[in-house]
Amino acid sequence: MSDLLVTGGQVLRPDMTVERADVLVDQDAGTIEAVGDPGGGDDELDAAGGLVIPGLVNTHTHVAMTLLRGLADDKPLDAWLREDIWPVEAELTPEDIRVGAELGLIEMIKSGTTALSDMYFAVEEIAQAVEQAGVRARLGYTAVTVGKDDEGARADLERSLEVAQEFDGAADGRIRTTFQPHSLTTVGEQFLREFVPQANEAGLATHLHANETPDEVGPIVEEHGVRPLAYAEDLGLLAGETYVAHGVHVDDSEIELLVETDTGVAHCPASNMKLASGMAPVQDMLDAGVTVGIGTDGAASNNDLDMFDEMRDAAMLGKLAAEDASAVDAPTVVEMATANGADLLGFDSGRIEPGANADLAVLNLDVPHLTPAHDLVSHLAYAARGSDVRHTVADGQVLMRDREVTVFDEDRVREAAVDHADALVERAM
Amino acid sequence: MSDLLVTGGQVLRPDMTVERADVLVDQDAGTIEAVGDPGGGDDELDAAGGLVIPGLVNTHTHVAMTLLRGLADDKPLDAWLREDIWPVEAELTPEDIRVGAELGLIEMIKSGTTALSDMYFAVEEIAQAVEQAGVRARLGYTAVTVGKDDEGARADLERSLEVAQEFDGAADGRIRTTFQPHSLTTVGEQFLREFVPQANEAGLATHLHANETPDEVGPIVEEHGVRPLAYAEDLGLLAGETYVAHGVHVDDSEIELLVETDTGVAHCPASNMKLASGMAPVQDMLDAGVTVGIGTDGAASNNDLDMFDEMRDAAMLGKLAAEDASAVDAPTVVEMATANGADLLGFDSGRIEPGANADLAVLNLDVPHLTPAHDLVSHLAYAARGSDVRHTVADGQVLMRDREVTVFDEDRVREAAVDHADALVERAM
Ligand SMILES: [Zn+2]
Ligand SMILES: [Zn+2]
Repeated sequence: MSDLLVTGGQVLRPDMTVERADVLVDQDAGTIEAVGDPGGGDDELDAAGGLVIPGLVNTHTHVAMTLLRGLADDKPLDAWLREDIWPVEAELTPEDIRVGAELGLIEMIKSGTTALSDMYFAVEEIAQAVEQAGVRARLGYTAVTVGKDDEGARADLERSLEVAQEFDGAADGRIRTTFQPHSLTTVGEQFLREFVPQANEAGLATHLHANETPDEVGPIVEEHGVRPLAYAEDLGLLAGETYVAHGVHVDDSEIELLVETDTGVAHCPASNMKLASGMAPVQDMLDAGVTVGIGTDGAASNNDLDMFDEMRDAAMLGKLAAEDASAVDAPTVVEMATANGADLLGFDSGRIEPGANADLAVLNLDVPHLTPAHDLVSHLAYAARGSDVRHTVADGQVLMRDREVTVFDEDRVREAAVDHADALVERAM
Repeated sequence: MSDLLVTGGQVLRPDMTVERADVLVDQDAGTIEAVGDPGGGDDELDAAGGLVIPGLVNTHTHVAMTLLRGLADDKPLDAWLREDIWPVEAELTPEDIRVGAELGLIEMIKSGTTALSDMYFAVEEIAQAVEQAGVRARLGYTAVTVGKDDEGARADLERSLEVAQEFDGAADGRIRTTFQPHSLTTVGEQFLREFVPQANEAGLATHLHANETPDEVGPIVEEHGVRPLAYAEDLGLLAGETYVAHGVHVDDSEIELLVETDTGVAHCPASNMKLASGMAPVQDMLDAGVTVGIGTDGAASNNDLDMFDEMRDAAMLGKLAAEDASAVDAPTVVEMATANGADLLGFDSGRIEPGANADLAVLNLDVPHLTPAHDLVSHLAYAARGSDVRHTVADGQVLMRDREVTVFDEDRVREAAVDHADALVERAM
């Protein structure tokens, strides 16, 4: 048996208080054994002058899209997808996706993220990168049926079901899966009516984009006579363990539906701002009892995967949306990015407490922009950034020690990413 | 004569293109001598694998408020000022202000900011800190008359005039000043009518808060029958070299007034979001021809002084406000944070070109979150963060080399800031 003692730091507890404590990690089980003054440990991780927090949970991303970072900015969602992103994505090779995923995972590890929920294709590549990275993930194959004939559309949804079944439990259980219809407007109704029940019968969780822009609301209301989430419920999409990305344009009836069906929301504030999609009513959703996590969305619409940025954005956009500076406060966004996110993905992570998964990050507090320390939870929400993370641990394993990523050769991956990105642009343009 | 060669990097030029070039700095004159392949240099600054950008210009801050970082969050402006900030500020000693300013200036230098526009009191302390820091600044004493008797109010405005005259040109010209009535609602009309003409006659520039919240619009319309900036114009406040902080709630007539009077705006997106003040119509102002710079506001409402965060926030909030993802695009925010900001403050900085002030920063691009490099201007706006800055130069002097601040003892200042912050809270609470 092998133990790791995270020693000398302050610890953020699940009730959002901070106390001086060591954390003993059972590395074989991948869980937290004790918090306090347990002693022991075959190995030590120095947290002196630091703050131990739960690893951050990125509930909606497209990790391989780091290869497209900065390729096309300052365009609305529809034009951006059709003119820039989809044409380039059509040229992506499995190797591109593998190196894009590795690059994104390195960025996540370096900014304290230990779990993610991903939507993409070539899932076998992403699964291998996640296995090597040591983080926890919900993966899946994203089905789109617009622009496809009947056979192609059906094949895509079948693939989404197959992938969800094939990879569930991979990487010693660190990988779980979801069935992934891309959105309510990019997958045709007849296909949803056919495949959603199959996913539910197979007990698969479901992850889809919903209510991101007005263009994802108006046409559905027009065609089906009901709001998008009522349409989703009618399709059986909210019956299982489901979470929707975005949820920007949701009305009160839809918030009620989310609560009734225990459907979570992966809130992506930076993406919603950058694409001018709108402001999600986050405080209203939280007040109603919706589980709301935070996601970066892909690096092409963010343009980083830093969950500290995203917490800050969630707090700030949440206040603007509510027209209330007290809305979506610091403890709330920290909880959204940790415990709520883990709950959304069904991982027993996001809390530093005995028995939970040993997914954590240690921040260096001895920096000017985190000085003085009137309130460390405020610092997490408003002042810390990914570069303040000193160590990252997931499933009990050290993924980064003193800013050195242990699970990848960072320089090699960065160089490979540059080469693959250059060749990709060459092919696509 | 002493020269510094910034060598081996790519350079962001004033037209927002990036080219491979060295930059030769005349350290005696504090200016850029040549850009290209000039050779020479008694000293070298290694920019290999890096990007040389103009030093960032923070056009509105209260630098000493770093001492209050995280002290009170998640409250609306009025309650936050009256219940938290003003009572604590009343207890600030000159030494507190000095150490708070030093801490803030270190944070700025470490995130590539080389010029600032500050509003506060105990200006002699801030001026000394700025002199030591080596950056460029517009300083001033902020007058407030609400809650004061006639004598106290007049004394406050006289002090603002005196300070603006006393410190103008200090630190070998790196310090310029402004007359600073706090805002149109916190300085009484009779005092503005008396003192604004004096400031204009003395040729002083003016810096004030305006149109930050609806509470700074409604009461003025009610009392004076005109919009706040029309009232300001009537007072003579827009006659000189004036810029207003915030400018969130401005209508078309006020945008027109800003253009006609050549009045600039210091846009503070993070503060406006965090205090739920609203969304400034930045793209409309830019389209009309207003000079718009970017500011962090004080660390108590941000909560950092990182201008990279602020560029990202400006782009994102600008898009939301315009309901247009193409608004306030990446080159625009980079220009706002550099050349426009310098123009606003009247400094010949913000552009890497021969003859301009040698105020610049060198970013390290060899990091995962800036890989690949499809578009470096996009990276500056959306993906870079303060910690990517490797070297900072202002007025030709190296203020930070390889992340090591040369002008302050960073550890000593951090420790002093903690002590002063603790004692301050003890006194005030
Ligand atoms: Zn997405
Ligand atoms: Zn201010």
